[in-house]
Amino acid sequence: MDVLRSKWNVEILTAILCGQTRFKDIVTVVKGISEKVLSDRLRQLADDKLIDKHECYGYPPRVEYRLTEHGKRLYGIVYQMTEWGMEHRRLILG
Amino acid sequence: MDVLRSKWNVEILTAILCGQTRFKDIVTVVKGISEKVLSDRLRQLADDKLIDKHECYGYPPRVEYRLTEHGKRLYGIVYQMTEWGMEHRRLILG
Repeated sequence: MDVLRSKWNVEILTAILCGQTRFKDIVTVVKGISEKVLSDRLRQLADDKLIDKHECYGYPPRVEYRLTEHGKRLYGIVYQMTEWGMEHRRLILG
Repeated sequence: MDVLRSKWNVEILTAILCGQTRFKDIVTVVKGISEKVLSDRLRQLADDKLIDKHECYGYPPRVEYRLTEHGKRLYGIVYQMTEWGMEHRRLILG
């Protein structure tokens, strides 16, 4: 699960899943990330087949990112892990 | 998910889920673990509410370990992560 260990990746995937599909939107909602780092991360996430880059022709032309089915499945697991973690804290800490 | 980071924990949970519920059985199937380490891990897993220790009275008396519902839920997530990881390797490595 190295893809989850990289700082920012879960936040970037969350942003895209929640409809922030364009570079300028993602860089706004992922607090503290630089444009260079976001650019690198998006390329890596696409190489890992977690997101797809869609070129939307038109005026102005634009690029949108979307989660692949593979990325959505990972996201579903991350969501369950988060829920389990919260339940775990409740159980252990009372 | 610190509980998954500890060496042995997933193997111990797998052994118990697969019916190796007694100390002497677990120490046999979890290759390379010492009795002392297994004993510590079982205590920690019980403190984390992932397993329960059942004292079965009779002759001879015996102790059995079982996954709690909380432990089974974690195990289900680990299983999905493993499946996703295998799919990921197939996708990335071709």
